[in-house]
This record gives sequence, C-alpha cells and structure tokens, in this order.
Amino acid sequence: MASLLVVGSVAYDTVETVAGRSEEQLGGSATFFSLAAALFVPVHVVAVVGKDFRETDLQLFRERGIDCSGLQIRNGKTFRWGGRYSSDFSERETLFTELNVFETFDPDIPQHLRSVKYVFLANIGPDLQLRVLEQMESPQFVAMDTMNFWIERDFGRVKEVISRVHGIVVNDEEARQLTGRQNLPEAMEIIRSWGPKMVIVKKGEHGAVLLLEDGFFFLPAYPVRAIVDPTGAGDTFAGGLMGYLAHAQEFGPQVFRKAVVYGSAAASFNVEGFGVEKLKEISKSDILLRCHDFHRMTSFELP
Amino acid sequence: MASLLVVGSVAYDTVETVAGRSEEQLGGSATFFSLAAALFVPVHVVAVVGKDFRETDLQLFRERGIDCSGLQIRNGKTFRWGGRYSSDFSERETLFTELNVFETFDPDIPQHLRSVKYVFLANIGPDLQLRVLEQMESPQFVAMDTMNFWIERDFGRVKEVISRVHGIVVNDEEARQLTGRQNLPEAMEIIRSWGPKMVIVKKGEHGAVLLLEDGFFFLPAYPVRAIVDPTGAGDTFAGGLMGYLAHAQEFGPQVFRKAVVYGSAAASFNVEGFGVEKLKEISKSDILLRCHDFHRMTSFELP
Repeated sequence: MASLLVVGSVAYDTVETVAGRSEEQLGGSATFFSLAAALFVPVHVVAVVGKDFRETDLQLFRERGIDCSGLQIRNGKTFRWGGRYSSDFSERETLFTELNVFETFDPDIPQHLRSVKYVFLANIGPDLQLRVLEQMESPQFVAMDTMNFWIERDFGRVKEVISRVHGIVVNDEEARQLTGRQNLPEAMEIIRSWGPKMVIVKKGEHGAVLLLEDGFFFLPAYPVRAIVDPTGAGDTFAGGLMGYLAHAQEFGPQVFRKAVVYGSAAASFNVEGFGVEKLKEISKSDILLRCHDFHRMTSFELP
Repeated sequence: MASLLVVGSVAYDTVETVAGRSEEQLGGSATFFSLAAALFVPVHVVAVVGKDFRETDLQLFRERGIDCSGLQIRNGKTFRWGGRYSSDFSERETLFTELNVFETFDPDIPQHLRSVKYVFLANIGPDLQLRVLEQMESPQFVAMDTMNFWIERDFGRVKEVISRVHGIVVNDEEARQLTGRQNLPEAMEIIRSWGPKMVIVKKGEHGAVLLLEDGFFFLPAYPVRAIVDPTGAGDTFAGGLMGYLAHAQEFGPQVFRKAVVYGSAAASFNVEGFGVEKLKEISKSDILLRCHDFHRMTSFELP
C-alpha cells in the first residue's frame, strides 16, 4: 500500500438543490478527494484554508487518516463557493465565488511529502499543477483534473501538464473542449496521444469511460434514486479511483478498470447527501457492496 | 427458432446530416426492424406502401427472408419523411411528413400470420397497436415502441397497450414523459409496475438500460467513430433484440441481457450509413464480433 498526495482546494460551500439548501458545508476538490481516497490508503492533503477553518473539520480529516501537515492555515478567510442546481441537476449556476486565501495559494510541498509515489493534481491552475510536479521527486503515478476556465484561459499550459502526467480525469464537456471533437471516443484518443496512459471521462448520470492502450472500458453510473447534491461527485470519483490504485500498486488493465468501479461507487454515495455528509458515514465495505452491484448490473455471457 | 411479426411503417426518407444528404432512401420503423431481426429469424412484415414502392426494395426484403405477405400495396404514394440532424446529432428537425397511404393504414393481420409467437408493435398509434393485439391468437412475447406524439395525444390508450405487452422499448425522453419522472431508474420501475416484465430504455450515445424483475442491466453504446445517419437506430436496436429473443426462445435474465447486446451491436452498424445502406451489408457474424467487443469493453473482475 502506497500513500497518496492530493493538491487542490478546501472550501465552504453553500448549495441549493431541489432537495434543500445547505450552508457553509465543508467542500472543495481536495476535501472530497481525500475523504474518498482515505477509505483505501493514507492521504496527504496539500491545500490552503483561512483562520476561520473549523476545528471539527480538521478533526474529521485526522480521524479519517488524512495527514494535514501540508494544509496551510493562512490569515484570512477560507475559500467560499455558492451554487444552485436545476431541478433535474443538468445545470449548475454559480451564485458566488470568494477565493479568499485560495487566491494566493502557493502549493509548497513539505520536504517529507516530496517522495510520495501517487499524486493527484485536483482542479487548480496549470501553473500551480506544474509547480507541484517540479517539487515531487520520483512519483510513480500522477493524475490530474482541470476545468473549462483553465482550458479557455491557458490551453497551452494545460496541455503541457497533460503531457507530463500518467493519467487524466475530466468530464465530457472538458474532453470536447480540449480537443474540439464532439465524438467522445475520438476526443479521448486525441488526449491520450498527448501523453497520459490513462484517460478517463466522467459523464455524470451516464457513467464513466476509461481509455488505456488496450482500448475502452465503459461503466454506467450507479442508479441513485434520490440525488441530493452532486457537488464533489467528480472529485469523489477521482479519490476512490486513485485510492484504489495506490492501494493496489499495480498497473494492469484490470486494475484500472476496478479503480473506475471503486471511484464510481464512491461518487454514487457522495451525491446522496449534501457536501460530505454521506462520505463521512460510509466505510470501505459499503463501497465494495456497490462494486458488486455494478458487476451484477453490467455483466453478461456470450456463447 | 420462432418467427417474428412486426407491424410498423415502411417509408422513403430524405435525410440531411453533416455527412451529406440522402434522398428517398428506404426507411420506416418496420423496415429497420425487419432487416435487423432477419439476421436471426424469419420475419413477417405488416405495413402499407403505395404503388410507387420500388421493386428493388421488395426484392431486398425477400432476399433477407422477410415475408411480405402482410405488406399491403395500396393506391397512392408511400409514406415520406424528411429530416435534418444538427452537427453533433443531438437534435433532429423534421422537414416534412407526408403520410400518404400510411394515413389510413389498417393493420389487418393475414389469417396465416395470426399464430406467430413473437410480435413487435413498432411506433404506430396505440389504437392500431391494440387492433393488432386483438387479432393475434396466443403470442408468447409481445413488445412495443411508442413516441412523444402518441403519449401527448392519447396517454390513456398508450398505457393500455403497455399494460398488455410483455416488453417495451422506448427512449429516455419517452420514459420520462410517460411517467413524469426525471430519474430514469425510477421512471423505468414505474413503467414496469404497469405490466411489462421487460422495460428497456435507449439512451442514444449513452447506451441502453434493461429492467427485469431481478434488476437493472446497463450497456454502453458501441463507440462508433463516424456517425453518418442515426435514423432508424432505435428500430434496428429493437430488431436485433427481438430477433435474438425469437431465436433463443427462452426468457431467462441472461437471454434478455444478450438480446440487448445484440440489439446494440445491430444499431451501431445502422448509424454508420444512410438509411439501410449498412444493414444491407452486414451478416450475423459482423454482429457477433461487436458483441464480443462489447464484452471486452464492459467486463471487469472483482475479488
């Protein structure tokens, strides 16, 4: 079992959905990622929060085996984000973004964490992602996320990061935006030609697609009946995925497929509650049960 | 091996897509269905065409083992439809609909076909679907399709047909419209509670979902690189599905799953050419190859 380092955001989210409203809930890409990944391996979180960061939230991280020695606590307020989802969850409107201490975040990796072998560059600017890469000593597997904002603003730099990682996890719109191709399999092959061995596209309610050298792997989304809040589903997916990979410490195609299944199972829990409500409650065996459900719901026999 | 009867439309389609334009191509739900199903079992087609129906098209049916004794040839012109797809194929605009002889179609089932055991009610009005059901003697497995037009216009009658069939194959929008539920798994369970043992929802590029008593089965769409014309994909899917079921003559969960795989493989070929261009070319072994691709692209092992 290897340990896993994530660099991303820790935030307080205010979210409105058909299921209700939730204020100042613990969120941020590094948070969702860490809580999911920590079900599998020890996680080191590198992020920044303000002096207002709640002691109970720090405690939650620690209880779940998340090392906070790389979590910077700065003068000022923690990153805040507010958003509202349409009734069918197909659209998301940002109501406010207050970067606060995140605006000047410098992902300085503490010396003792630079030798960590598994690294996830969550959705932060490509300059910061590169800065992390430069500090890591000899990582075995680095994966990244990005978003439309960075792709529009600094495509060249995003592509540079992509060319230097082993894996990328983006959503369908981002894959299309990165490549200018509507056809998703085609877009994924183009991204793979830029460097990463593993390309994963998340399609929300339509599941996820993995592309490796040996071809595609498709997995549906878990059929969740009552979605409460999709915030962080993608980060939770990446956390389950990377957590499983770091646990397995293998790189065969079957291991990556399983990692997608574990990531999807983790994400399916996350959307059933506001913020990290559900992630806080579940254990690895809950995840495993849904992995077996996935197997039942996707397998078929051919003559 | 049982034979299979389909009641639906036979038409001449004029289609524009990014791949080009195709005029007066053989189309219609019963056509796509029959050509796909005939790869597996003998098919009887019940439909109506005008005196202008081309001899070469009749010949195509006969060559593929499609019995045309129920194909009515009436004074007047064959049903015509014209449509245009958006560049990403996500939207379809109808340019014209000329019902012609289809307007007064009476699905009179010839006496010698009333004992056929497998029946598909393609997308025609619910009154006509009921009229077919009344004429069939003791079908073993009847499945149906419908569309937004009928659901809006005559929901009660559509629901009556649903309550009297063994299977239903609709797309995601129709499933939502039928039930008023956004959540697809929930919508499918509601439809199943109305009667049919088998509920299938087609999601286009996102694949298909099957619901039986023992739960859900998800299959992605085949990753087709160059889509030419999606017209008839749903009918081709239903044709491959029902053709396989009639061939298997079994009703276990694994048979239904395989039927979804066969239907999806058939549909993936259909979208690669205009009209029935591709369906005319393929054989059962082409379908089988893609079924094995599906298996490779969806299977994973759990401890």
